[in-house]
Amino acid sequence: MNLKARDIHNENPLVKGIEIDKVGIKNLKYPITAFDKKEKKQSTVATINMYVSLPKEFRGTHMSRFVEILNKYKDTIAVRNMKPMLESVRKKFSADSAHIELLFPYFIEKTAPCSKAKSLMEYECEVICSLSEKGGFNFTLGVKIPIATLCPCSKELVKKGAHNQRGKIIIFIKSKKFFWLEDVVKIAENCASTSLYSILKREDEQFVTKWAYEHPVFVEDVVRNVAQKLDKLSDINWYSVEVESYESIHNHDAYAFIEKK
Amino acid sequence: MNLKARDIHNENPLVKGIEIDKVGIKNLKYPITAFDKKEKKQSTVATINMYVSLPKEFRGTHMSRFVEILNKYKDTIAVRNMKPMLESVRKKFSADSAHIELLFPYFIEKTAPCSKAKSLMEYECEVICSLSEKGGFNFTLGVKIPIATLCPCSKELVKKGAHNQRGKIIIFIKSKKFFWLEDVVKIAENCASTSLYSILKREDEQFVTKWAYEHPVFVEDVVRNVAQKLDKLSDINWYSVEVESYESIHNHDAYAFIEKK
Amino acid sequence: MNLKARDIHNENPLVKGIEIDKVGIKNLKYPITAFDKKEKKQSTVATINMYVSLPKEFRGTHMSRFVEILNKYKDTIAVRNMKPMLESVRKKFSADSAHIELLFPYFIEKTAPCSKAKSLMEYECEVICSLSEKGGFNFTLGVKIPIATLCPCSKELVKKGAHNQRGKIIIFIKSKKFFWLEDVVKIAENCASTSLYSILKREDEQFVTKWAYEHPVFVEDVVRNVAQKLDKLSDINWYSVEVESYESIHNHDAYAFIEKK
Amino acid sequence: MNLKARDIHNENPLVKGIEIDKVGIKNLKYPITAFDKKEKKQSTVATINMYVSLPKEFRGTHMSRFVEILNKYKDTIAVRNMKPMLESVRKKFSADSAHIELLFPYFIEKTAPCSKAKSLMEYECEVICSLSEKGGFNFTLGVKIPIATLCPCSKELVKKGAHNQRGKIIIFIKSKKFFWLEDVVKIAENCASTSLYSILKREDEQFVTKWAYEHPVFVEDVVRNVAQKLDKLSDINWYSVEVESYESIHNHDAYAFIEKK
Repeated sequence: MNLKARDIHNENPLVKGIEIDKVGIKNLKYPITAFDKKEKKQSTVATINMYVSLPKEFRGTHMSRFVEILNKYKDTIAVRNMKPMLESVRKKFSADSAHIELLFPYFIEKTAPCSKAKSLMEYECEVICSLSEKGGFNFTLGVKIPIATLCPCSKELVKKGAHNQRGKIIIFIKSKKFFWLEDVVKIAENCASTSLYSILKREDEQFVTKWAYEHPVFVEDVVRNVAQKLDKLSDINWYSVEVESYESIHNHDAYAFIEKK
Repeated sequence: MNLKARDIHNENPLVKGIEIDKVGIKNLKYPITAFDKKEKKQSTVATINMYVSLPKEFRGTHMSRFVEILNKYKDTIAVRNMKPMLESVRKKFSADSAHIELLFPYFIEKTAPCSKAKSLMEYECEVICSLSEKGGFNFTLGVKIPIATLCPCSKELVKKGAHNQRGKIIIFIKSKKFFWLEDVVKIAENCASTSLYSILKREDEQFVTKWAYEHPVFVEDVVRNVAQKLDKLSDINWYSVEVESYESIHNHDAYAFIEKK
Repeated sequence: MNLKARDIHNENPLVKGIEIDKVGIKNLKYPITAFDKKEKKQSTVATINMYVSLPKEFRGTHMSRFVEILNKYKDTIAVRNMKPMLESVRKKFSADSAHIELLFPYFIEKTAPCSKAKSLMEYECEVICSLSEKGGFNFTLGVKIPIATLCPCSKELVKKGAHNQRGKIIIFIKSKKFFWLEDVVKIAENCASTSLYSILKREDEQFVTKWAYEHPVFVEDVVRNVAQKLDKLSDINWYSVEVESYESIHNHDAYAFIEKK
Repeated sequence: MNLKARDIHNENPLVKGIEIDKVGIKNLKYPITAFDKKEKKQSTVATINMYVSLPKEFRGTHMSRFVEILNKYKDTIAVRNMKPMLESVRKKFSADSAHIELLFPYFIEKTAPCSKAKSLMEYECEVICSLSEKGGFNFTLGVKIPIATLCPCSKELVKKGAHNQRGKIIIFIKSKKFFWLEDVVKIAENCASTSLYSILKREDEQFVTKWAYEHPVFVEDVVRNVAQKLDKLSDINWYSVEVESYESIHNHDAYAFIEKK
């Protein structure tokens, strides 16, 4: 066999003069570490995308190098190590820009309102970061926060009861300074009719049911609530907030969206 | 080029003495026709699986033949034509058993309770059928019916309000006689706190909210309600009923399951 | 019961001074009609999102109105009717901007290269359109085109064989003039190692295998090929092209992306 | 507020005389531990379902108790602890039968064939276990193994090349004795045209391409290969094997299935 075969990746591209914005690997599952607000390690599993830009002179990318970098960082693939990892990527590929995206479940311990029973809640997280000569280091954090909404209109129409349902707040943030996921989650959960829990004892269920009934919100209210609170945080350069409410009386969802201009 | 190449499918298998239960094509998207209770045609799009059994003497199946049969039936691929289609499959493949599975969205027009506004509700359907020498013709119909459940426990714990949420009843039925999907859907929807609608005007929302509050059910109640009603239908040989409730105060689901023994 | 209850949607919002970019309904399944290049009607099923902007003075949206508009257009919900539908939405909601998104499977008849056997191929489509005072009518068409890629590097390394795999080209286009989906699909399919078919007879499989072997491409080649061809179409204002290749020797995907600046 | 409210779960059911096969919680995400063949701990994240049977005398289940049990086992929720967990469930619910289902990604380190580069491959696992008075302890292990298949027919039709693609072998096993996941994966990977790797250097890609070309298999061959090997393991009471091949020349999949009778 002939390993002296042409290395086609380094040859001239068939199509001339076109730079590629992003090229790399997608949907690789890999164990990673997240650090929570108490500085405790959390082991989780991420879906990873890694890309570089490719100048018009080169035909292809050596994709195995992305996985080599992952393997090098192995037990330290953590959100806080994204910048050095991106630097390794740029260097190894001699690329102008490098991109890493991590999607992973993250757990926060919550305490039930009355019984004080503790349990873990899962939040889907997304870390999107890039590094380039011109643009420098860019970091976007996304998180999906499950909540409940209780319909103010439905409550107004009847003496007792009101339709309510599970929903989701989806936040993406670009910030000048580091911030904790736990803080974003807390902001969002306080904007809904009620926050959710993995465990609720009888007294907690009573409390949560009553609380939600006393705090009816439309998706319009939730999205504005969150936007207003994020507007007050001066370190945040940009955000988008989406609210999805899985209406219990319909088989479609209610939706609202605000983006910081 | 050499079309006189060996036809490997017809050769002896490498592994001797093992019959294959099912072999064929999976996840082919194709337009099909469904007929509703009013005998009106409904155009929809199905995900189709088609399999045959393969005796131990043959190495492979000519998979393109499945698609040829689909193309032959083209505008008449309908639930009511499953038996002749299965006969075509058995014959074309000289197979002992043939299987067709169709998954498709089906629409039923519903009328809002007060305003009488009409709208379409979508139900995910699944048709699983097989034909064999020994077993004859077998037909299983599956349908997912979106519903709402209002928690009796939560209602009892507070003066006003009660957590409620969207849920789903999933029914599979084997029957001696033909039955309409519309009838199964109706049975299921009457077992929940309320049925769902695509359109609800103000007066309808009032009615539905009140109705759900007055008909609280656990998933345990729903699954028993449906099972009891299906038990009364003497034509039904077998059924399974699952209920999933997307709890508005948790990020996990409540679940119940009964299978007719 | 009291239908003279307050209409909370029209009241002042709890959070002052925040306009909502988009609010409405999401994930409603509905039958729609598509017209193909031969001007033939095609019945399909769409997932529909409909949104409006909401000024800071109003607390909520009357979500049932979206479904009323859908019902009004019922048998004529087609891509070509998006503009009048958006006008209806803007008017009915007195909204500055209106948005409709349709996601649906679309079928194109393809002819096998040698046997000339005809069969239907499914393409996932996405229509995103909006209408506003300032921005006018905006229309983006998205389509996912399944293809195969055969690795030039793998081919070079051995005398016979080369790993190949299914992939997808995902194109979004904004255009000054109307264009047919069939034309975009054709452009994309010609940029891969081979186009896919639902049915291939023996002689077709021979042809396609040979063709793919003679046309090896990296995702980098495919994305550039498509970009170059779209660059030549002067009516296209903007496009993005993604290529995903489900590598047969890895459990992750190769990916490339170009966006017209 | 009144916590002396009726505990409705313990009341008589509205529908009389119907036992529920399974009732509980579904789709709860929770961190768990897996032990690999080298007795090393592996942290991963599971989707968890927990059910009990409910006799006809009781209306409902106290669902929060499932999560209490999870919390009690917290850092020791591992496949090897399923039996004591099921005993806790049966006892806490005074239930005849208890069921736990875990779905989670599991990682195995693989070594590239020539460069000996090491990397992690992910396998989706499913643990289904139950405990009942009559049936005793039942344990089913499921695992999805990504592979490649190279078509023998396509290879035969041309002088060079052959379509190949990613596929999946899905195995469920009931065994008298404990067995390692690693061993099942190894059996399966050896039945395909080639096994997959996260990292392949140039010399590895050469080797793997050549190997796959020399080991063409239909899904029919793969499913029989695996069945034959599992038949030889005398500890296995029951198995099912499915093979899905994501055909690179079609947009649908090839499929084969064998179940041990």
